[in-house]
Amino acid sequence: MPLIHISLRAGKPEAYRQAIFDSLYRAMREALNVPEDDQFMTITEHDAANFRYGNAFGVVRSDDLVFIQITVFDTRTAEQKKVLFRRIAALLGERPGIRPEDVFVNILDAAKENWSVGQGLAQFA
Amino acid sequence: MPLIHISLRAGKPEAYRQAIFDSLYRAMREALNVPEDDQFMTITEHDAANFRYGNAFGVVRSDDLVFIQITVFDTRTAEQKKVLFRRIAALLGERPGIRPEDVFVNILDAAKENWSVGQGLAQFA
Amino acid sequence: MPLIHISLRAGKPEAYRQAIFDSLYRAMREALNVPEDDQFMTITEHDAANFRYGNAFGVVRSDDLVFIQITVFDTRTAEQKKVLFRRIAALLGERPGIRPEDVFVNILDAAKENWSVGQGLAQFA
Repeated sequence: MPLIHISLRAGKPEAYRQAIFDSLYRAMREALNVPEDDQFMTITEHDAANFRYGNAFGVVRSDDLVFIQITVFDTRTAEQKKVLFRRIAALLGERPGIRPEDVFVNILDAAKENWSVGQGLAQFA
Repeated sequence: MPLIHISLRAGKPEAYRQAIFDSLYRAMREALNVPEDDQFMTITEHDAANFRYGNAFGVVRSDDLVFIQITVFDTRTAEQKKVLFRRIAALLGERPGIRPEDVFVNILDAAKENWSVGQGLAQFA
Repeated sequence: MPLIHISLRAGKPEAYRQAIFDSLYRAMREALNVPEDDQFMTITEHDAANFRYGNAFGVVRSDDLVFIQITVFDTRTAEQKKVLFRRIAALLGERPGIRPEDVFVNILDAAKENWSVGQGLAQFA
């Protein structure tokens, strides 16, 4: 049930954006061991004037930067998060071919009681 | 002061999207007892290529799926959240008529000191 | 590494939206003491039908309302958050000239281990 919101500059072809979804799904399968077809993700495309980034923390970013905000169960360990970051950067590097400098990830923790994945139920509470 | 971000596929008529707002507001009034006119919500519409969902957790979803991410005070109980999920699914089922399988809700908790609802003040700290 | 998502009504000129970015960056520099060029922000513009707000909490808002959701380290104090709210409202009031009633801010806390600002690393864990 991770819920992922991705923000990037507008203009990438559809195949490129599908590859982002595919690689993120694969990273979650490997690093978080999520069940099959547990993929819930949106992409928002931004014009240049609506997308601002800097080069803080010694990382030289480009217009290919993607912001990835992932909400997950608050039971994930720091080690799992590290593996997730590593796999996301590696897999996005393969497909669609994003430089690791352009992969910005933030995780939000949400308790199990904070999720309803359908039917009006709190499936994990 | 819940802040709600809704993501869905593009193409629904305006009345449909207004009904989503109306039903969510009503659900918050009933389940969280929020004050009158405490409604702060945005909808982002996505093309098919920017909207990915799966059928994990035994729920058969459709292109009518809506992702609803709600940030609330971290004082809400698990029981209140359960009631909220139930009311959201029920009311969206009435108007605009969304199947309960297509209602995906995630709650983010934020401390009272984390809100400024205008004037540069921390009204609830 | 704050990550900021801004939502507002569509139709403001580019210079107006750039001024929002500039003022938020300046507010973070002053209130949170973030490093130089630590600016990671997106703006999403919404049609009227996708943007809902009320006048709860005694604040008379207008169509110029901006929702600002800021994810920061969970080490920030309540006092820092208060200063941040005050500076955001003051600076947005100067440029692009937003009324303080129309500045709605929500902060999300994320642990240091929850951030990867590039390279697949957890830089702050």
